[in-house]
Amino acid sequence: MSHSRQIHLARRPRGIPVREDFAVVEVPLGDAAEGEVLVQGLVMSVDPYMRPRLDADQALETPLIGGGIGRIVQSRHRAYAVGDLVRHGSGFQERFCSDGRGLTKLSPDPELPLTVYMHALGGTGLTAYGGLLETGALKEGEQVFVSTAAGAVGSVAAQIAKIKQCYVVGSTGSDEKAAWLRDEVGLDAVINYKAEPLAESLAAATPRGIDVYFENVGGAHLDAALPRMNVRGRVPVCGTISSYNGSPQAVYGIFNLIYKRVRMEGFVATDFAPLNGAFMRDMTGWLKDGRVKYQETVLEGFERAPEGLIGLFEGRNTGKMLIRVAD
Amino acid sequence: MSHSRQIHLARRPRGIPVREDFAVVEVPLGDAAEGEVLVQGLVMSVDPYMRPRLDADQALETPLIGGGIGRIVQSRHRAYAVGDLVRHGSGFQERFCSDGRGLTKLSPDPELPLTVYMHALGGTGLTAYGGLLETGALKEGEQVFVSTAAGAVGSVAAQIAKIKQCYVVGSTGSDEKAAWLRDEVGLDAVINYKAEPLAESLAAATPRGIDVYFENVGGAHLDAALPRMNVRGRVPVCGTISSYNGSPQAVYGIFNLIYKRVRMEGFVATDFAPLNGAFMRDMTGWLKDGRVKYQETVLEGFERAPEGLIGLFEGRNTGKMLIRVAD
Repeated sequence: MSHSRQIHLARRPRGIPVREDFAVVEVPLGDAAEGEVLVQGLVMSVDPYMRPRLDADQALETPLIGGGIGRIVQSRHRAYAVGDLVRHGSGFQERFCSDGRGLTKLSPDPELPLTVYMHALGGTGLTAYGGLLETGALKEGEQVFVSTAAGAVGSVAAQIAKIKQCYVVGSTGSDEKAAWLRDEVGLDAVINYKAEPLAESLAAATPRGIDVYFENVGGAHLDAALPRMNVRGRVPVCGTISSYNGSPQAVYGIFNLIYKRVRMEGFVATDFAPLNGAFMRDMTGWLKDGRVKYQETVLEGFERAPEGLIGLFEGRNTGKMLIRVAD
Repeated sequence: MSHSRQIHLARRPRGIPVREDFAVVEVPLGDAAEGEVLVQGLVMSVDPYMRPRLDADQALETPLIGGGIGRIVQSRHRAYAVGDLVRHGSGFQERFCSDGRGLTKLSPDPELPLTVYMHALGGTGLTAYGGLLETGALKEGEQVFVSTAAGAVGSVAAQIAKIKQCYVVGSTGSDEKAAWLRDEVGLDAVINYKAEPLAESLAAATPRGIDVYFENVGGAHLDAALPRMNVRGRVPVCGTISSYNGSPQAVYGIFNLIYKRVRMEGFVATDFAPLNGAFMRDMTGWLKDGRVKYQETVLEGFERAPEGLIGLFEGRNTGKMLIRVAD
C-alpha cells in the first residue's frame, strides 16, 4: 500500500484564508481496481472563485474541490492507457484512483507547454472567451475596460478584445504588472488602481466611454466603470474578488444602468461548453502565433497549494497561479 | 395679450426638493400665429424620474421638462381643430402656443376617465408593460417581486404579472397601501418595508425564489432581492428612487449575479415605442374589464405641481400623482 496526500479544509476561514485553515493530510492509496485508473497529478489550478466555496459548499476534512491535469500511471480501465494525460476534477489530491468519472483525455499541442492547458487553454481561457464574446456580446472596435487585467482571466479577456480591434483599458495593482500590460500586451491604457485615483484615471482613459466592462472585482471598480458606460453597454460579471474575503465593498452607482440601458449579467464557464470547439481552435492559434501572451506563477510542490490560494488574495501571483505536483 | 403660468426651477435642490426650489411664474401669452395652436393644459404628470434631471439637465428659469394632456382652444394649424385633445411634452405650462411639435392627438375611450391616459394608458403603463414583458422577459407562471408595488409603475407591473398567472410579491411603505395591494389588487404577498425586516420578509414570501424582480428602489431592496434570485433570473431596472435625493444607498450583493447568471438591465419607456399598439389594446381591455385597478392622487390647481413632485419623495401619493390644471 502506497500513500498519497490531500489538501483539506481544516476550518472555515475568516476573511483572507491563512495557512492554518488548511491541512496537508497523508492517506493510504491502493492500486487501481478493475475498471479504474491510478492518476498521478502533474499540475493543479488555484482560482479566486474557490474562496466563496470555503464558506459553505466545501466540506471540512475532505480534499478541496478543484481541478488539474494528471497522467495515468496504472490502468485497469479500457479507455485509458498508461501515459495518457487527463484533465480531472478530482480535487486537491497528489495521486488518486478513479473509475473515469470527471476525467477528460487531453492531447496537448506539442508546441505548447502543458501548463497553458490549465489557463489560456483551460477553464480560465474559456471563461474570458465566453464572457467577453457571448455574455458581453463584444463587437469589433468597441471600447473595453477589463479589471485585474494582468490576472489569469483578465489578461486573456483583454487580449481577445485587442484581437477584436477594440480600444482596451486595463486595471491592475502593481507597476510591474502595469508595465507588462502596457509594454508586452499592448493595452491602450493601464491603470494601477493602488497608485492612482481609479475613477478619475478611468474617466481620463476612456474618452469614448465604455461599451463592455469585463468585471472581475466589484465595489469601487464597478462604481468607477458604471458612470462611463455607453448606451446599451454590457457588464459581463465574471467575478467580484473584492467581496470574496468577508464584507463586500459597497456599490452606489446602480442608477447608471437606467438611462444608458446597461445590461449586467453573471456567467460561469460551464455555460460556454457549446463554444469549446471554437475556443480551442481560436486560442491554440493565438497562443502559437504569439497574439495571446501569458504569465504564470508556478509553485513547486503539492503541499504549497494553500500558499498559492492565499497568495491570490494578496496579489502574489503574476498571471495564472499554478501548483506543480510532479513532472 | 392674455397670460399663462409656468413652473420654473429656481435653484438646484439639495436632497429632497423643497417648495423654495421652484417658482410659479406669470408670463404673457399671445394668440396662436399662423401654423400654430393654443393649448389649454388639463392634466399634468409628476414622476420620480424628474428628480435626477433637477441636478443637471433641467435649465434654471425655464418651464420644468414634463408632459401632460391639453385641449386645443385656438387653431391656425390645419391638423388640429378647437376641442381636440392632445398629449404634449411642452413642460409645466398652464397654456401655451405650439407649432405642433411634440403634440400627439388623443382619442380617449369614452368609458374611461381622461386621467388614466396619464398613467395606466400613458408612459407609466408602457414603462411597466415593456419593462416587465420585454426587458424582464416575463413568462407565465413565474415568481415575481415588484418594489413600490402600490406606486404608479409598480402597481401596473404587479397586475400585469398577475394577469400572466405569476406568483407576485409586492413591497410598499404603509399599511394602507399594503391593504390595497392585498385586498383589492390580490397580490400573493405584500411586505410593508417600513414596518417589517425587508430581507427576512422577502425570503419568507418567496419560497420558490424570484424569477423577475421589477426594480424601482435600489439599495436595501436590491440587496434583499439578489440572494433570492433564481438561475437565469432577470432584474429589469426601472428606477432607483432610493438614490434620487442625494447619497445613494449602498448595494452589497452584486456577487449574487454570478452563479445564478442573473441579468440586470436598465430601460426607459421610449425604448418600447414599437410595443405601443399592443400595449394600448391590452391595457384598454384590462382597465375596462377591471383586471387592472389603479389609484390616483390628483392635486387641483396648476400651482400645486411643485407640491406634487415633492410629495412623491415623501410617499404622499396613493398611486399616480397628477396635477389638474383645468377641466
